[in-house]
Amino acid sequence: MSTAAPAPPAAADKVPRTERGRQTLRKLLNAAEIEFGEKGFHEASINGITTRAGTALGSFYTYFDSKEAIFRALVGDLSARVREAARQRQEEPRPALEQERVALTGFLRFAATHKEIYQIIDEAKFVDPESYREHYRSTARRILDRLEAGIARGELRDDLEEAHAWAIMGMNVFLGMRYAVWDDEDPDRIAAVAADILGRGIAKA
Amino acid sequence: MSTAAPAPPAAADKVPRTERGRQTLRKLLNAAEIEFGEKGFHEASINGITTRAGTALGSFYTYFDSKEAIFRALVGDLSARVREAARQRQEEPRPALEQERVALTGFLRFAATHKEIYQIIDEAKFVDPESYREHYRSTARRILDRLEAGIARGELRDDLEEAHAWAIMGMNVFLGMRYAVWDDEDPDRIAAVAADILGRGIAKA
Repeated sequence: MSTAAPAPPAAADKVPRTERGRQTLRKLLNAAEIEFGEKGFHEASINGITTRAGTALGSFYTYFDSKEAIFRALVGDLSARVREAARQRQEEPRPALEQERVALTGFLRFAATHKEIYQIIDEAKFVDPESYREHYRSTARRILDRLEAGIARGELRDDLEEAHAWAIMGMNVFLGMRYAVWDDEDPDRIAAVAADILGRGIAKA
Repeated sequence: MSTAAPAPPAAADKVPRTERGRQTLRKLLNAAEIEFGEKGFHEASINGITTRAGTALGSFYTYFDSKEAIFRALVGDLSARVREAARQRQEEPRPALEQERVALTGFLRFAATHKEIYQIIDEAKFVDPESYREHYRSTARRILDRLEAGIARGELRDDLEEAHAWAIMGMNVFLGMRYAVWDDEDPDRIAAVAADILGRGIAKA
């Protein structure tokens, strides 16, 4: 259920034990996001990442064995940050449809300020297919958890299943690509379109 | 509008003038679909394509200048074939929601038998970004044309806009990835889930 916070994915091969170590790891992941986003996996380099991060090469190898390893960690990290963005302001209980609207708004805001996320997730399909599938499987699972909570509260139709969650995720991903990454549309307006489809469909009343 | 057939995209740099030429071009595109789908763009080779097609290297260069050129042509070709698959059995007029259901069923059947299509379209994002965007822009445009026809017939809400078309496309793409490419679910069952969301939303009546 959405109220049970899942364990954060391991962001690195080795987990930092000090605050300073956590900061270095964060810098490396942020630098990797820009390096992979701008250059793509094949052109990106470990050197490019440490230069952007302002860290020594040794710091990189404290946490990662290879370019592949930090790429895999980055996909897990972005996946977790997307989850957090969608969950923001979700502490207070909301009606199920309202919860979907707020989750999509949060995702659209995140995508607008992290436009390279689609590039990185999509490249994972080729560089690290298992991370790619896991990103979408876990996102769909989270949506399904929310739907099931809404069913339990009697707000949603009780015949909703996994395919509904994948349909909602697909809507969100494509609205994000078109209106947050390619363009800078108002997230509230776009999230309202999706919420409205979920609320009443598109047929004339 | 969906009744006005758009011009087919140029499938090759040079257009064949004979039936034999058209057959050779078709063989090359089919072989390219398998070669790029199996190996990815970077590992794929012109030699691999002509060997699979059973054509001479000279035939390849009659129609294409490079590996990039046939890849671009293949994306356009797949885009056109997806369009045809979604349009199948659409000759007779149908209610708007039924039309969306039939279009998605056709797409799911096509994706199930052309599982490499996602691989190729997604790789286009990196190899030929303009083809990638054009594929989705034209697909969304087609959906919006159908929605506008449904509005004109008084079947759909008259406040539908481009974002609704992108939301529907996203549902379709993700349902296809999950249930036609990763799995082999019954297309009719999956298309019914999407049609049902569009028909009445997910809230409890």
